[in-house]
Amino acid sequence: MEEFKLLKNISGPADVKKLKKEELPQLADEIRQVLINTVSKNGGHLASNLGVVELSIALHRVFCSPYDKIVWDVGHQCYVHKLLTGRFDRFDTIRTEGGLSGFCRPDESEHDTFYSGHSSTSISAAYGIAAANKLKGNKNYTIAVIGDGSFTGGLVYEALNNAGRSKTRLIVILNDNDMSISRNVGALARYFAAIKARPGYFRLKAKTEQLINKIPFVGKKLSITLFRIKTYIKNMIYKSTIFEDFGFRYMGPINGHNINQLIDALEGAKAANHPVVLHINTVKGKGYDHAEKSPEVFHGISQFDINTGEPLSAGTNFSAEFGRFLIDVAEKDRRICAITAAMSVGTGLDGFAARFPDRFFDVGIAEAHAVTFASGLAKAGMVPVFAVYSSFLQRAYDQLIHDGALQRQKMIIAVDRAGFVGEDGETHQGIFDVAFLNSIPNVTVYSPSTYAEMRRCFINAFYHQDGLAAVRYARGTECILPDDFEPTFSDYEVYGDKEAYTVIVTYGRLFGFAAAAVRRLKEQGIPVMTLKLTKIKPIDKDAVTILLGKKKIFFFEEGVKSGSVGERLALILKEQGYEGEYTLTAVNDSFVPHAPVKSLLKRYKLDTDGMCEIITQSFQKPAAIGFEP
Amino acid sequence: MEEFKLLKNISGPADVKKLKKEELPQLADEIRQVLINTVSKNGGHLASNLGVVELSIALHRVFCSPYDKIVWDVGHQCYVHKLLTGRFDRFDTIRTEGGLSGFCRPDESEHDTFYSGHSSTSISAAYGIAAANKLKGNKNYTIAVIGDGSFTGGLVYEALNNAGRSKTRLIVILNDNDMSISRNVGALARYFAAIKARPGYFRLKAKTEQLINKIPFVGKKLSITLFRIKTYIKNMIYKSTIFEDFGFRYMGPINGHNINQLIDALEGAKAANHPVVLHINTVKGKGYDHAEKSPEVFHGISQFDINTGEPLSAGTNFSAEFGRFLIDVAEKDRRICAITAAMSVGTGLDGFAARFPDRFFDVGIAEAHAVTFASGLAKAGMVPVFAVYSSFLQRAYDQLIHDGALQRQKMIIAVDRAGFVGEDGETHQGIFDVAFLNSIPNVTVYSPSTYAEMRRCFINAFYHQDGLAAVRYARGTECILPDDFEPTFSDYEVYGDKEAYTVIVTYGRLFGFAAAAVRRLKEQGIPVMTLKLTKIKPIDKDAVTILLGKKKIFFFEEGVKSGSVGERLALILKEQGYEGEYTLTAVNDSFVPHAPVKSLLKRYKLDTDGMCEIITQSFQKPAAIGFEP
Repeated sequence: MEEFKLLKNISGPADVKKLKKEELPQLADEIRQVLINTVSKNGGHLASNLGVVELSIALHRVFCSPYDKIVWDVGHQCYVHKLLTGRFDRFDTIRTEGGLSGFCRPDESEHDTFYSGHSSTSISAAYGIAAANKLKGNKNYTIAVIGDGSFTGGLVYEALNNAGRSKTRLIVILNDNDMSISRNVGALARYFAAIKARPGYFRLKAKTEQLINKIPFVGKKLSITLFRIKTYIKNMIYKSTIFEDFGFRYMGPINGHNINQLIDALEGAKAANHPVVLHINTVKGKGYDHAEKSPEVFHGISQFDINTGEPLSAGTNFSAEFGRFLIDVAEKDRRICAITAAMSVGTGLDGFAARFPDRFFDVGIAEAHAVTFASGLAKAGMVPVFAVYSSFLQRAYDQLIHDGALQRQKMIIAVDRAGFVGEDGETHQGIFDVAFLNSIPNVTVYSPSTYAEMRRCFINAFYHQDGLAAVRYARGTECILPDDFEPTFSDYEVYGDKEAYTVIVTYGRLFGFAAAAVRRLKEQGIPVMTLKLTKIKPIDKDAVTILLGKKKIFFFEEGVKSGSVGERLALILKEQGYEGEYTLTAVNDSFVPHAPVKSLLKRYKLDTDGMCEIITQSFQKPAAIGFEP
Repeated sequence: MEEFKLLKNISGPADVKKLKKEELPQLADEIRQVLINTVSKNGGHLASNLGVVELSIALHRVFCSPYDKIVWDVGHQCYVHKLLTGRFDRFDTIRTEGGLSGFCRPDESEHDTFYSGHSSTSISAAYGIAAANKLKGNKNYTIAVIGDGSFTGGLVYEALNNAGRSKTRLIVILNDNDMSISRNVGALARYFAAIKARPGYFRLKAKTEQLINKIPFVGKKLSITLFRIKTYIKNMIYKSTIFEDFGFRYMGPINGHNINQLIDALEGAKAANHPVVLHINTVKGKGYDHAEKSPEVFHGISQFDINTGEPLSAGTNFSAEFGRFLIDVAEKDRRICAITAAMSVGTGLDGFAARFPDRFFDVGIAEAHAVTFASGLAKAGMVPVFAVYSSFLQRAYDQLIHDGALQRQKMIIAVDRAGFVGEDGETHQGIFDVAFLNSIPNVTVYSPSTYAEMRRCFINAFYHQDGLAAVRYARGTECILPDDFEPTFSDYEVYGDKEAYTVIVTYGRLFGFAAAAVRRLKEQGIPVMTLKLTKIKPIDKDAVTILLGKKKIFFFEEGVKSGSVGERLALILKEQGYEGEYTLTAVNDSFVPHAPVKSLLKRYKLDTDGMCEIITQSFQKPAAIGFEP
C-alpha cells in the first residue's frame, strides 16, 4: 500500500468521520503497521494497542471528542487514539525525551481527557465528568474504556456501585481480551468467559421472554408454582450480569474487531439514556503474530526485532536476580510465599510461579488486597513476599500501615522499579516509596546497590528481624563499583577517603555514581568519602556518628525530598548538634516526566557529573553560612 | 434478672458452649444490657454491636476460637465477642486509657485474630489465613464477619475475586443491616434488598430445578428452543448472586436474631467444603429502641442518657462549623460539590446533603473512588470538596497523587480528625496525613487553629489558588487563644515576644498550647515567640526568614516525625545556614494507642506543660552542641 495514505491525512476525529466506511479496514491496517514499527524502535505497549484499533476508530466515528470525553483506563491502549487525534506526525517520538507520552496527558492534547498510568481509575473519573456535565445540563457523553484486567482492581467496583444508579450519560466499554498484564486471574475471568459463552445472548433473551409468557398452565398447584418460577426467571434474565446487579444496562458481548458492529453497538449505547456497560471481545496483539502468541511479553516491551519478535537487549537485572534468589530460598524454607499484583513477569516471579504454584499468588491488579492478604498469610505462619513496582505500592499505603506494620508480624515487600523508571513517565516513577515507607512506624527499609546486597537484605528480612520489611531496588541492573571497594554487607558502607571532611551520603543505585565521584574528585584534589546506606530506615546510629565528625555533607537521593532519608538525616544531625554544611539533592515537590533514566539522573544532578558539580561549586562560592572549610 | 448471672460465668468460648440452648436468649439479654450500660458511659459503637449479639453467640457455639479464626471487619461489632472471650470483667474499661480497646487487638486476646479499625479488610485477611492453613494442611476454619456497608469498599471485591476460586475453609458472613455508617448508598444496597425480597429462596431453587426438568416438550422447534432456555435458566439459577459470580457458595438470607437458625446455617457453611458467603439479616441497634430508631446516631456515639438516648455533651466543633460554612459558600457558588465516604454526619455534611442533594455525593466506604471521582467532577468544571477523616484518607494516597495532584486542577480535601482522635486508638489517629500530603508534589496544605481561620483557608483554596488543596483540622473544638492575639489570617501568625531568640513553631490545635506556653514562660522570665503556620505546605518564605534570625527553635507537631513539617523545616533551615538549636517534638516512629486526646497531648509533651518543660530544660542542661544561649 502507499505508505500511510489515509493516516497521514488524519489531523483529528473529524477526518476519521470523513472516510468512507470501506476505507476503515485500510486505516486499521495502516495504524497497525505504525504501531508495530514504532514500538519495535521505541519500546512501549504493543499488544494492548493492537487490540483496540477498530474500537478506537469506531469511537471517533460515533463520538465527538473533545466534546464527548473518552477516558482510557491505564492508558496502555491510547496509542491508536493518539494517531487519530492529530499526533501521527509526532508518533515516532513516543516515549522519547520531549516527545509524546506513552500515556494520556491532557497537556499533550485536548483529546486526552485524564492523565492515566495506574489501573482501574477510568470509571470513577468518567463518572465524575458525567455527573458534572449532568449538573451543568450538558448533553455530552463520557466513555470509559477499560480492560478486563482492570476489573481485578477494587476501585472499579466502588465506581460501579456509585455510577450505576446515576442518570448520567456514561458508557463503560469493557475491552475483554482475556487477560490483564499477567494472565487474568480469579473468579472474575471465568465469569466473563461464562458470559461470552452464552450463545446469541440478546436474541435468546427476547425469545425467552416471549416463550415464558406462553408456558401453558397445567393444574392449579403447578400453575401457582410456575407463576412464581416465571417471575423469578424473569428477574434472573433481566438481572443477568454483575453489571446489571450494579445498576448498569449491559450490552454484549460483541466482536471488537468488526468496525461496523462496533459502530452499531456504540450508537445503541448512546441511545440507552442510562449508564451502559458495552462488553466487547478483542484479541490482544491482533494483527501481529508474535504479539498474538505472546500477548503478555508484548504488553509492555523494550525494543525488539519486528521479524523475529525477539527483544534487542537482554541480560540480567534486579527483577530476574530477585526471582532466582527467591526460588533458592523457597526450596529450603517452605514458609516463603510470593505474591504479585498481575506482574509475574515484570517482577521476575514467573519462575517461582512455575516452581511453586501452591505458594504463588497472582492477585490481579489489586495491590491493597495483596498487602492485607499477605498479612493474613503471615498471621498463620507463612513468610509472604509481595513483589510490586514502587509506584503501584502507593495504592496500598493504608494497608501497609493498618494491615502491615500495625499487625507486627513478619512480611516482606519487594519494591521493584524504585527510583526513576524512565520512559513510562510521571505515573510510573518510583519516587514516593521512600517517603511513604519512612512515615510508617516499625518498618525496616533496605535499599541495596548490588544483587549480592539485595540477597543479604532479604536474608536479613527473612531471618534476622521481625515485622514489616521492604527491600527496594532499581529498574535495571546493579551498580558498577570500583575494584577497590570491599563490601562489608552491614547496614552501611564506607568508600573513599575516610578522613575527608566532605562526605557524599546516598543509597541504592546512586552509590555507583558516588563512588565514581569520589575517584574523580580525588583526582581534582578534593578528598571525599562516600557513606552508603544499605538500611535506610532506621538510619544506623554508627553511620550518624561518623557523619557528626564531618563538615560538608552532600546527600543525593532519587526520590521526593519531603519524607526522604536525606531530610530525616538532616533533622537527626541537627538535633545532635551537627554544625557543618548540609545539602540534599533530590526531587523537590514536582513530578518527573518521561525520559531515559540516564537523562533524568543527569537532569536532577544525581549522576557522577552532577555530584561532582555540586561538590566543587560548594568549594568555589563563598559558603552561605560563613563556614570555613 | 439476677445481674449478669450467665455472663459473669463466661470466661471463654468453652463456657458459651456449655450453656443450655434455652439459656442463650437470656445470655443475649444480659449482653445487651452490658452493651447499653457501658457505651452510655464510655461512648463507643453501640448499634452495630446490638445487631450481632445472636451472631456472636452462635459463632462461639459452632466454632472453636482461637483454633478457628474469626476476623471482624472494622471491629465496630466486636464488643460481644470480647464479652464472650473472657473480657467481661474488664469490659467497663473499654475505650479508656489502659483499658480494653474498642477494636480487635491481638495483643489484648488470642481470640482477636487481626487488628481492625478500617473497613473492608476482613475477607483479604481471612483468605490469607485460610490459604496459609490450607498450605499447612490444617483443618481449621476462618470466618470473616463483614457488614453490608463494608461491601461499598473495593477491597472486598479484590478479595472475593481471589478467594472464590480457592479451595479454602473460608466462611464470609455478610451481616446485612441495610446500612453502612451513613445510610447505605449505591446500587449494591438495592441489590442486597432484592436478594432478600426473594421468597423462600432455597426452597424455590430446588423446586424450580425439578420443575424445569418436567416441562413437557411440545413440537420440535419449540422443544429445541425450550432446551436452550432450560440450560440457560439452570445457569442463571445456579449463578444467581454476585457472590456466586465470584465463585462462592451462597447461603441465605436468614434471620440473624434467631440463634438456632444461625447455628444451623453456620453448621451448613462448615459442611460446604468450599468458600461460602452466608447472608444474614440483622437489625442495627436491636433491643434498644433509641438505637433501632436512629442507628446512624448510635453507630459510634459519645456518652449518652440511657433513658432519653440524648448525648450528654453537645456544642459546636470543626466538623459542624465546616458543614455550615460549606452550605453558605455553596449557596453562592453552584460549582461547589460535597463528597463523603459514608460519613455524612461525622464530617458535618448532613446539612449540605439536605440542602443540595444534587451536589452531594455519599460514595460509600470508598475513599479511593471519592478522590478520583472528585477529580472527574473538577475536570468538568465543578469544585469538589471531599470531607474525610485523616486516617481514612490514607486509603486514597495513590489517587491523591495520580488523580489529584498530577491532574493539576482545583479540588479540595477537608481532612477531619487530623491529629490525635483519642479513644478510637491506633487505627484512627490522624497522625499520617501531614507526612503523606507533604510528599505529594503541588499540594497546598492548610492547618487552621480556629473556625474563622478554617473558613479563610477554604476561601483561599476555592478562590485564590489552583490545584489540589487540603484543609486539615482537629476532632473537636477550636483553640482557645489569648485576648491579646490578633489574627492576621495570613499564611502564618506570630504571637508573644517578637524579639525573643527562643521560638515555638507549631500549627493547628497546638497553637492554643503554644500561646499559653508563651505567657507562662514569660512569667518565668523566659521570653518566647510563637510562630504558628496556617499554611504548612509550602512553608512561607517570610516565616523561614524570621526563624533564621533565632537561636532556639522548638517545633511541636501532632503527627509522625518522618515527613513532618518540622523535619522539612529543619532541612530548609539547615540548607539556609541556620546555626541555632532545633528540636522537634512529635510522634517518633510509633503507633499511638487509645486514650483521651488530652492525655495523649500530655504524654507526647505537646500541651502547655510539655512545651514549657522541654523549653525550660533546654536552658538548664548544658547545651549538647556547645551553643551559648
